[in-house]
Amino acid sequence: MNLDSYLTDHKKKVDQALREYLPPEHTYPTIIFQAVRYSLFAGGKRIRPILCMAAAEALGGKADAVLPVACALEMIHTYSLIHDDLPALDNDDYRRGILTNHKIFGENIAILAGDALLTEAFALLSDPKHLTDTDPSIHLDIIHDISSAAGFFGMIGGQVMDVQSEGKEFDMSTLQYIHSRKTGAMIVTSIRSGALLAGGKPAEVDALTQYGTQIGLAFQIADDILNVEGEENRIGKRTGTDKNRGKATYPALVGVEDSRKKGRELMEDALAAIALLDEKGEPLRLIARHIVERDF
Amino acid sequence: MNLDSYLTDHKKKVDQALREYLPPEHTYPTIIFQAVRYSLFAGGKRIRPILCMAAAEALGGKADAVLPVACALEMIHTYSLIHDDLPALDNDDYRRGILTNHKIFGENIAILAGDALLTEAFALLSDPKHLTDTDPSIHLDIIHDISSAAGFFGMIGGQVMDVQSEGKEFDMSTLQYIHSRKTGAMIVTSIRSGALLAGGKPAEVDALTQYGTQIGLAFQIADDILNVEGEENRIGKRTGTDKNRGKATYPALVGVEDSRKKGRELMEDALAAIALLDEKGEPLRLIARHIVERDF
Repeated sequence: MNLDSYLTDHKKKVDQALREYLPPEHTYPTIIFQAVRYSLFAGGKRIRPILCMAAAEALGGKADAVLPVACALEMIHTYSLIHDDLPALDNDDYRRGILTNHKIFGENIAILAGDALLTEAFALLSDPKHLTDTDPSIHLDIIHDISSAAGFFGMIGGQVMDVQSEGKEFDMSTLQYIHSRKTGAMIVTSIRSGALLAGGKPAEVDALTQYGTQIGLAFQIADDILNVEGEENRIGKRTGTDKNRGKATYPALVGVEDSRKKGRELMEDALAAIALLDEKGEPLRLIARHIVERDF
Repeated sequence: MNLDSYLTDHKKKVDQALREYLPPEHTYPTIIFQAVRYSLFAGGKRIRPILCMAAAEALGGKADAVLPVACALEMIHTYSLIHDDLPALDNDDYRRGILTNHKIFGENIAILAGDALLTEAFALLSDPKHLTDTDPSIHLDIIHDISSAAGFFGMIGGQVMDVQSEGKEFDMSTLQYIHSRKTGAMIVTSIRSGALLAGGKPAEVDALTQYGTQIGLAFQIADDILNVEGEENRIGKRTGTDKNRGKATYPALVGVEDSRKKGRELMEDALAAIALLDEKGEPLRLIARHIVERDF
């Protein structure tokens, strides 16, 4: 199979579904819908929703059946980027090659747009329109898994530590705390929620959780390496910013070469974790390689 | 029955449950738990959770059985206050007589504390520990009701219009849009979620929804009147701020006397809406009067 066409096809599904689930841009009060759509359709790679769909497909489920959950994950991811870019946090002017949300709509609307995306993700996850013929308790499990991954001991906790570590000495255990929570937790729940919705057995969900944990770390290491030596016009945002801010990153701690090596090891571990999957798991295998080898 | 002791007793239940549901303050990374607890235990009146419990009790349910939902509502309310007070929004230094969250913890942590409270509210609403012996689809209905009330067409929409109306001409329809969404929607869902969890029949839930709509408006009008003529040391925040900012309020549009009259009319409508309730609905009746007559 061809990974590029798999990614293109699944990204298209996500983009179409997001457009369908969100109120039209001219809905009153228009500015909030414009602000939300601006960041949601700013050219994201849709990695989290694609992982959710790929996990469901790996266990015999259908990509289309998990689209509401996949889109909710992307909404939560986008909210986190909008808030992360705010002047009080990372103070970034560009993201994906275009101005950040608050640079266009103002800080007040950017804060509210992030709040709205987070809130509406849960409205989507509990929307009776999308809950047909699945056991409602599985949907509750998924809501709990996703909200926990986004909360105190997941993304928010990682973000807090990231803020607090800026410009300070840090060690490998702080770094792993930040990575596993700030990026890792949402990647793991993306995969778990797809697996749960596809009716995965506990052993399958565990294997996919392992896979997700490894590629989540590999993903963040790859991001950190790109911040050191990526091409700004390929990745759409400024590079070198982590170093300038004294951010806790892998390259800062062990250097670029050892970071790359660690990324490859994590990929091997991820592949080993899903050895039990048949050929339906092939997209997950290719995605693991892609995450480590990507240059944007 | 005595309303004061009812409010005191139920407020205590909420405070205790919140302390139990939240991780201890010394949990790592400590600053986020300190920030969240700072605002959550800053002396809020717990109106929304009390309404949730009172609605459940009015239909024969138990207050204790709805505590997780009641606390989630208070967490969402508190997140909205933290974000609302930020410099980019209302730029308030004081709330409930003490410094606002960002004045103590910084804007970055205040943004994340709000995000965390919103996120963890949904983790609480879907926590398997609290879902015993209730139909899981009712919990999904409640999550959908609450997230919709907090989202685009609820609290966020009202907040956006509030931001946009500052210093501009406004009419009664804009004002009612703002009021019904910014404050009203969360009050209505507080009552509806209590009613749904207590197994309310559609006619009962409808009656309570009507009641909630009326008291939600009455509550906001009372708040606006207090901003004009309340005593700062009673209500714990600066007064006169709405007028200085050119905010869309009832007193600004029709004057204090007609605002007071409107509040009383809404209270009468609220009482009429729940005429079908027996004596178990008494707390709701007393709360409706209290909302219009309160001076803090």
